[in-house]
Amino acid sequence: MSDQERRAKRREGRRVGHAARAAGAPQLYNKLPFTEVLSAEGMEMIHRASMRLLKEIGILIIDYPPAAETFRSNGARVEKYEKLDAGGAIITGDLVRLDEDTLMNFVRQAPSTFTQLARNPERSVTFGGRNLIFAPVYGPPFVADLDHGRRRATLEDFRNFAKLTYMAEHLHHAGGTLVEPNDIDVRERHLDMLLAHIVYNDKAFMGSVTHADNARDTVTMTEIVFGAETIRQNPGVFSLVNASSPLRWDDRMFGALEVYARARQAILVTPFIIAGAMSPSTMAATLAQQSAEALFAICYAQMLNPGVPCVYGSFLANIDMRSGAPCFGTPEDALALYAGAQIARHYNLPYRSGGNFTASRIPDAQAGYESAGTMWPTVQAGTNFVLHAAGWLEGGLIAGYEKFVIDLEMCGMMARLVNGISLTDEDFAWDAYEEVGPGHHFLGARHTMRHYDTAFYQHTIFNMDNYEKWASEGSHDTYQRANAVWKKKLKEYEAPPLDPAIKEELDAFIAHRRAELRERKPRTEWKR
Amino acid sequence: MSDQERRAKRREGRRVGHAARAAGAPQLYNKLPFTEVLSAEGMEMIHRASMRLLKEIGILIIDYPPAAETFRSNGARVEKYEKLDAGGAIITGDLVRLDEDTLMNFVRQAPSTFTQLARNPERSVTFGGRNLIFAPVYGPPFVADLDHGRRRATLEDFRNFAKLTYMAEHLHHAGGTLVEPNDIDVRERHLDMLLAHIVYNDKAFMGSVTHADNARDTVTMTEIVFGAETIRQNPGVFSLVNASSPLRWDDRMFGALEVYARARQAILVTPFIIAGAMSPSTMAATLAQQSAEALFAICYAQMLNPGVPCVYGSFLANIDMRSGAPCFGTPEDALALYAGAQIARHYNLPYRSGGNFTASRIPDAQAGYESAGTMWPTVQAGTNFVLHAAGWLEGGLIAGYEKFVIDLEMCGMMARLVNGISLTDEDFAWDAYEEVGPGHHFLGARHTMRHYDTAFYQHTIFNMDNYEKWASEGSHDTYQRANAVWKKKLKEYEAPPLDPAIKEELDAFIAHRRAELRERKPRTEWKR
Repeated sequence: MSDQERRAKRREGRRVGHAARAAGAPQLYNKLPFTEVLSAEGMEMIHRASMRLLKEIGILIIDYPPAAETFRSNGARVEKYEKLDAGGAIITGDLVRLDEDTLMNFVRQAPSTFTQLARNPERSVTFGGRNLIFAPVYGPPFVADLDHGRRRATLEDFRNFAKLTYMAEHLHHAGGTLVEPNDIDVRERHLDMLLAHIVYNDKAFMGSVTHADNARDTVTMTEIVFGAETIRQNPGVFSLVNASSPLRWDDRMFGALEVYARARQAILVTPFIIAGAMSPSTMAATLAQQSAEALFAICYAQMLNPGVPCVYGSFLANIDMRSGAPCFGTPEDALALYAGAQIARHYNLPYRSGGNFTASRIPDAQAGYESAGTMWPTVQAGTNFVLHAAGWLEGGLIAGYEKFVIDLEMCGMMARLVNGISLTDEDFAWDAYEEVGPGHHFLGARHTMRHYDTAFYQHTIFNMDNYEKWASEGSHDTYQRANAVWKKKLKEYEAPPLDPAIKEELDAFIAHRRAELRERKPRTEWKR
Repeated sequence: MSDQERRAKRREGRRVGHAARAAGAPQLYNKLPFTEVLSAEGMEMIHRASMRLLKEIGILIIDYPPAAETFRSNGARVEKYEKLDAGGAIITGDLVRLDEDTLMNFVRQAPSTFTQLARNPERSVTFGGRNLIFAPVYGPPFVADLDHGRRRATLEDFRNFAKLTYMAEHLHHAGGTLVEPNDIDVRERHLDMLLAHIVYNDKAFMGSVTHADNARDTVTMTEIVFGAETIRQNPGVFSLVNASSPLRWDDRMFGALEVYARARQAILVTPFIIAGAMSPSTMAATLAQQSAEALFAICYAQMLNPGVPCVYGSFLANIDMRSGAPCFGTPEDALALYAGAQIARHYNLPYRSGGNFTASRIPDAQAGYESAGTMWPTVQAGTNFVLHAAGWLEGGLIAGYEKFVIDLEMCGMMARLVNGISLTDEDFAWDAYEEVGPGHHFLGARHTMRHYDTAFYQHTIFNMDNYEKWASEGSHDTYQRANAVWKKKLKEYEAPPLDPAIKEELDAFIAHRRAELRERKPRTEWKR
């Protein structure tokens, strides 16, 4: 099927109607002033330190000589590296050192904004600038709910979170590994996850990075959905590659990055840093290191395919020095989050960071303070893409059903916040003062009635009842209230329409790949 | 006793030692860039609208002709006002209209910064500029704890919160009506509350505003503590007067304001606005109204005593349009909080706003999101004085014991946040990279060890344990953990030293005033 035929079919499919479609703009536009915690001089100091790390200390590439060769052929110094670590293990690889000019000549080629296609074209999202995109939690091996506590996640859980994400007005993106479907063979589960994103949702989705072949499968499925030529113009998939900090990238991540870069699909480059362990315990060094790691991979992507869309990502928490446990929603992390956004803007790159983070295992008060304590700086930093905006518990080990719907309340409030204050004549309410006068309330004023539906954010889970009413109805806390909400949502779920021809081809491809994987055969290209 | 004798005695008292004294700086210094949500043009629009409200609509003064007379004699237009409200009640008073020049000539005389004395001189706090002061919850008629739920507050509760405030490293101010001591006669309880602040704490405290005579008692007790001449140089007490919004001030508040202004004690002027009820439902009008009300009272204070320290206060929530219930931690309130700070700075006045607000009745997830969702904008706005920084529940109706200690965690994190990011050579950790190299963790690095104690905020209540450890220890949520913390604190409490001569005179004064109040005699001045 050609792209043109496919597009015609899709238009037809759309005519079937989007009645069951959730509401929501493709993304938010952040009108707030961005908080910049670094002075111009401070920004320059971080930049210099990153350049010094890249030039003097270097980045280690593990088990992936092609990448080292690409760097070498583009002017980097590459040498074999071997060092005993504190635990007695040998770390080996190619140590790559490169100078600022080489690096920046490539980094500069990454676009400052780009649009990722969604299969519902109204939901295609634009990264960069003042755009703000919320996406659900990514990666938890566990799920939890009030009824059953924590348990290993399954494909059914994945599908549930895909459905909840589709229905969430304030999530603009489908996300990626919503949970790990542990009941599916690890070699095949990327196929099931991608299919679930495509079938149960119509928002833009993320690809697999667990193996270069999985990345290839992702590209094939994305081509089936959008057409191969179409996604060379605007990426159809967006994939998260993590550095093995400190100062290290491995074959798995660079292998996937290479597939996506060559296919011109968008890449989210994110050092994964728990400061005090994977970086020094000081934020200045942590930020310089994060930048060195991120820019290195963005540079690599641009060496492979100049102009491929890349996002500068930050996942930055810190250890509790006493126990070694990771902490979330801390002041140090917030400061680093702010600085990270500023650094990404300095390099004209879209920025990913933040989310509704917490170390808590349940959605209790700690979860609230820590989640809000991450989302506020996330939004005020001018972050463009917010993974983990809903569902995160226990440092990302758990996708919480209740936490997911509670976080949506936070996302909804942020969606109002970014609009700032409206200052039209109507907003100054002169007629209300004429009508009401000093000392009288405005509850019944005509102006108040005109603004009745839109004046304030309307809560869905947070509850404003007084103590008596609340106690008489069972003294439920937020956790208990949220339990009813996600169950109701899942009951009400209706799938968005999907072109049957696309579904058919996806099923055929998946069957083909499952057979190859089960028979341990090498991957063959899908003939379309 | 002269001021000099008193000072000598106090110095002696101090020598007794402050071993039991809680740690903590007098206040925080906020190095963060302030978030400004209004453009210069927007700021001017709010200013113009405030001036128009004051000139055309006017402010109503209820039952207090002396204030109306003061305004008239300073050039305002004053006329009798009478209007039926929607419920059929008649609102009467003096309607005061004044122009920008008259208003600003007085407002301009309020100092942009001032220092309030604490009886421990190391704890005297400076308002204005980049200073940030946290104070406990103010005004709840109820207390609550996990063991007993909600109940009417007593003097014992007041004393408990005074003790907890003294011990709280991250509260810089004693606050005022920590809870309403309902078991004490309403005419006398201001005496017990003030004595408790002075005896159980050594931080700067707030005065009574419930009657002009109570304000006089406050001034007398403050003079006993600091000396009458001393507090004319730097105020010894700081008192909260609230407008009866919209556009109305009453005899009770203006009576107290007059006493404090003439005694040159600091005044916190705060319109109390639930938008949608006491103001229009749009933030532009609400901000203009808030400013008109605040500037009007500051103008009045300056008319009475030019140069008396005043703080521009904002207490701004909004109603839930569906139920009429007040909401806290909403995006609209946050935007107004930001704008309020900018407006106060425009008039060179210290700013009060925010706190750990929530509508929730217990410290659950909602309480966490809403509290953090108020404290983040509070701090980033550049607020100077934060009342309700600890203990607030149910829209201020409850002082929660557990909420109090949980909020202190938030205050502690904010205390780190305002320091920003340090960028010294040491912070760039070059020796750590030399020592560790790419791919190795930094846990045992010499640099990490050097920063072990200070690197990251250390939590006291939030818990980072993994699920297994947490479950094996009883699966306690934050609410349960906090229950043990406040009980332990109260057990460990030791009072700060207090000059026995001061205590003696306070007791004598209180006995004298109690007798007058019980015998319904007019107040007589205390002969010292």
